[in-house]
Formats: sequence, structure tokens, C-alpha cells
Amino acid sequence: MRGLWLEAQALRLRDDLEAPTPPAGEALVRVRLAGICNTDLELVRGYYPYSGVPGHEFVGTVEAAQGAPEWLGRRVVGEINASCGACTACRAGRRTHCEKRTVLGIVARDGAFATHLRLPIGNLHAVPEALDDESAVFTEPLAAALELQEQVRVSPADRVVVIGAGKLGNLVAQTLAVTGCRLRVLGRSPRPLALLAARGIPTAGIDALEPRQADLVVECTGHPDGLELARRAVRPRGTIVLKSTYHGKAEVDLARFVVDEITLVGSRCGPFAPALALLAQRQVDPRPLIEARYPLSDALAAFEHAARPGALKVLVDCH
Amino acid sequence: MRGLWLEAQALRLRDDLEAPTPPAGEALVRVRLAGICNTDLELVRGYYPYSGVPGHEFVGTVEAAQGAPEWLGRRVVGEINASCGACTACRAGRRTHCEKRTVLGIVARDGAFATHLRLPIGNLHAVPEALDDESAVFTEPLAAALELQEQVRVSPADRVVVIGAGKLGNLVAQTLAVTGCRLRVLGRSPRPLALLAARGIPTAGIDALEPRQADLVVECTGHPDGLELARRAVRPRGTIVLKSTYHGKAEVDLARFVVDEITLVGSRCGPFAPALALLAQRQVDPRPLIEARYPLSDALAAFEHAARPGALKVLVDCH
Repeated sequence: MRGLWLEAQALRLRDDLEAPTPPAGEALVRVRLAGICNTDLELVRGYYPYSGVPGHEFVGTVEAAQGAPEWLGRRVVGEINASCGACTACRAGRRTHCEKRTVLGIVARDGAFATHLRLPIGNLHAVPEALDDESAVFTEPLAAALELQEQVRVSPADRVVVIGAGKLGNLVAQTLAVTGCRLRVLGRSPRPLALLAARGIPTAGIDALEPRQADLVVECTGHPDGLELARRAVRPRGTIVLKSTYHGKAEVDLARFVVDEITLVGSRCGPFAPALALLAQRQVDPRPLIEARYPLSDALAAFEHAARPGALKVLVDCH
Repeated sequence: MRGLWLEAQALRLRDDLEAPTPPAGEALVRVRLAGICNTDLELVRGYYPYSGVPGHEFVGTVEAAQGAPEWLGRRVVGEINASCGACTACRAGRRTHCEKRTVLGIVARDGAFATHLRLPIGNLHAVPEALDDESAVFTEPLAAALELQEQVRVSPADRVVVIGAGKLGNLVAQTLAVTGCRLRVLGRSPRPLALLAARGIPTAGIDALEPRQADLVVECTGHPDGLELARRAVRPRGTIVLKSTYHGKAEVDLARFVVDEITLVGSRCGPFAPALALLAQRQVDPRPLIEARYPLSDALAAFEHAARPGALKVLVDCH
């Protein structure tokens, strides 16, 4: 089959990849549309060790599902962590933290920038008929944005600041707007801020940061200095959620976290069902984030595009 | 009056200090016994800007309390944050984070290493008659140890690791032992670990750290590398409580906090009432931590003693 192949920090387009042969319990999915995430760019930069097909944001069609014929032909999105179900983490209900997990396009499991992929049937979610592929392909990052609401209670009285208005910050802001909280998004670039302002979400430049006022700050910059900005914005006994990952170590003044009793919460993959619901209800619309769309044959150009500073979402048509 | 005076990182014993003259709502307290805390040592090192009498751990006797004669002659301990009652933080119930607070012996309020101090009457707690001064003087650090249980739920099923067995780690461990959690204290020096082992609390060297197993890790080392040890010990989606402060910045691999969805909670001052209750019930006994006791006239020697590596609690008799 055709697909992108990552090895030794080099991406190649290959036509000689073996098509996946799903074991019992897994489905074969023809990929319709896939999105490039910053994690994909970090994999290419070698920040994490991975060889194989990258890609974990997708919408596709089930072509085979042994023992579960009801899935055949259905349009699906899929949770990316394939868990063992038996380890301590799985038994405690923390399946995204399974000690033996493979992760689509990230850890020991070929991903979505190919004509086909395989995933456990239990990871699949049917896409509502009315929901277009261009929206559905955002289910995974939207679920990640929603994860913070699994971890932290957000109420309408809360003053919430999102720092960073890029791909992730936009989705985080849209999900927080649904809660009715007193939301403000701070960013450096006018263009992504304008996308949020167009949805009625208050935005401002980083200079407008009000020190020690926010009950909750969500760090979505993808830069090591984002945490320090968040710390300046959060009130004593407030909470900072770290959504973006970045390579390397950050310098942190831990005494401030103690004196101000700040809580810092790392946040990764989230729940698909509410993400699909918000998309289907159009309470969140990710489509203005789409900056470009390339065929799989031009996937290398798509990656170059996605790596440009300030680039928003780049999609790859895989069928 | 006689007291220790800190100015420009120099400690002096002075006999010419003005005795406090409490305004309405404050009490004059004769100090009986005061304890030296690591924060006092950091103040002397100039890590925080403070000039005045240091000291915030004390037990004393009320000598004057305008409009509240019921306090006269009572033996008391006192909460160290004097709050305004009117700012946003106070109105939200976060009085220890009052934006205009003074803090006994730390921020703009003379402290306990003197014959007398003053505090708002509302900050005072009567010491039960059966409780000796040597135990009562630990109320403030014990309250700080209990603060984490105000922030994080600890259950008997939880695997809890305390890193650091010094003055703070010992009290944290004793308060956690009361919860019935599966507790283990890791430390570098045999002597403070032995104090905990004598109370039946499991202890081990740092080398015995089991990676990614603990539901809750409490960092009490007072060293910048303590957070990295805690991160190694905590399980995915577990919690690290930062109890100790240290000057300067720590290097933190934030991506691990995101990928493992770790929660980090800064923790400072805590509730006095449960601390006094645990002391009165002898569920916590801090007295084995007492390493030396000096008269106020030898308070400079007491500070030198407290600054020795590995020193446990040094007390100063102030009456």
C-alpha cells in the first residue's frame, strides 16, 4: 500500500508498504482524511523514537472487522491508544496509560498517513452521518482539548485564560467557551486570534496578561516559556493545565508554586464521545483552522507546509 | 525588649528592640518557646527580602488582648498569616493568600525570636492544657504538613511515598500515617529515617525508589532534584505534592508531566485546629525531632546549629 514512512528522522513516501492484516479484535480501516499534528512534526525531528507510518488524527471507513460485521462500511474515527486491558493501569480504568500500550502513529503501531490502518474495534467511534470528514478529522485533537475538563472542574464563575491560539489553543478555547466560563485567549499572532474573535471569544495579545487573576490557565503555546507566562497569569491556589508538549527541559521557579499553592496538571488524550457530540451539534467548529489539504501523493509537501511557523491545520487526503 | 534582628543577611541579638504595641484586634504574646525552620535559614541567606525579627513557629502566653479579655493568660499558638479580610483572596476564603498579608517573621511583621510578639486575636489557638510546650511549638509546621490533606484526598488504598525524612518530611509522614495509606518514606540519611522507623513507618534509602508506582508522592527534600525523584516515583495520572521550598530554578522535563498526566500541587501553610488535635491525641509526636534547645541569649548559636547539614529541630527558649 501507499503511505508515509518515518525512519531515522527521514520521511519518505512509499508504495511498497505491507497493508495491515488485523488480528482478531481489530478492524481494517481505509483512511479518508488525516491531519498533521505538532506531535507528528516532533516525531520527524526525532524528539521521540518511532519508526513506521506516522499519523494519529483521521477519519476513515471500516473495510474489515472480524467478528463485528456491524462495523463494516461505517465511517469512523478511532482512539489512538491500544491498551492491553490487563495491566494495573488498565484495571484501574486508566487505559490511555496502559503500560503495554501501542499508540497509532506514535508508539509501535503504524498510523494514518497511508491508505489503510488497523485499530482495535473497541477504539472505534461511528461518525454521525451529518458530520463532514473535515470536521470529524478533528475528533482526536478535540478529545485531547476536552481531557482537561475530565481533570479540572470548570464553572461559569471561573476566570480562564488560554495561552496560545494555535491549532490546540483554538480547540481548547472553543471547548471552554461551551462551559460559559469567563474566557480569554492570549496569543502572539493576530491571524489565529482573529479566528477565535470571529466566534465571539475574547482575545488579546500576550502583553494584556493580567498577573495573578486567573482561576485556571491552559498552556497551549508549545514553547518552554509558556509555563512561566501561565504562572504569571494564575491566581494563588489556581490551576495551570499543561496541554502542549515540547522537547527539552524548562526552567521552573518551584518556590512560586509552593508559596502560591499552584496546581499544575499535565493533560494528554481525551474522550472521543463528547468531542463527536460537540462537533455534531456544531458547538465547536474546527474547520476555520484548515489551512491546506494535500493528496497522499504530496504528503511530504504537506509536512513541509505544516512545519512553517504559524501554520494551522494541514490535512492529507488518503483515499 | 530582647530579640534576634535580621538585616542585610546579618543576624544580631539586640536588647534595644521596641516591644510590640498591639493595635485593636491584636494580642500581645509573651513567647515561651520558638522553633527554627528552614525558611528562617533561607531568610538569613537573603533568599527573601525581610528585615526584622525572624521566627514563626512558637508557643506563648497572651499578656494583652484589647477587647478580648478571655484570652488573657492563655497559652497559645498562632497562625502566621495576618490577612486583611477584604481583598479578593480573603473574600474567597483564601486568607493565607491575602494580597495584603503580613506574615509573622517572614513578611513585614516581627516574629517569634524575641521575648514578645503581636498577632491578630483571630489567629490565636488555645493550647490544650495537657499538651507540653515542646510539642505545641510544632503546631505551625504540623499544620503545614496537614495542608496537603486539604488539597489532595488520601485514602487507605493509596500508595504514598514521602521523599525526604528531615524536619518537614517527618511531620508529613506522621500525618500521612494517620490516614492508613500505604506509606513509605525515602531518605538519604539513616538518622532521620530511624526516627520514623521507630514509629512503625516503613522507610528506605533513595535507591529503593520504585519507578512509576506511587499514587501520591510528597516532595520534602528541600533540594532542586527532589522534583525529578518524585516524578520518577509517581505513577501516570498520579499526584506530586511540593512541600519544600528552595531558592532558584529547577530544570523540569515538562513533556513527562503531559504524557503521564501528572498533577503537581504546591503546598504551604495549613490548618491549626487538626494539627493541635493530632498533637493532643499523640497521634503525631514531633518531640524526637528536637535536637537542641538554646536560651534566647544564645539564639545566634542556635541558628548556627540549625544550619548544620542534617540538623533536625533546634528550639529557642524565649522567656
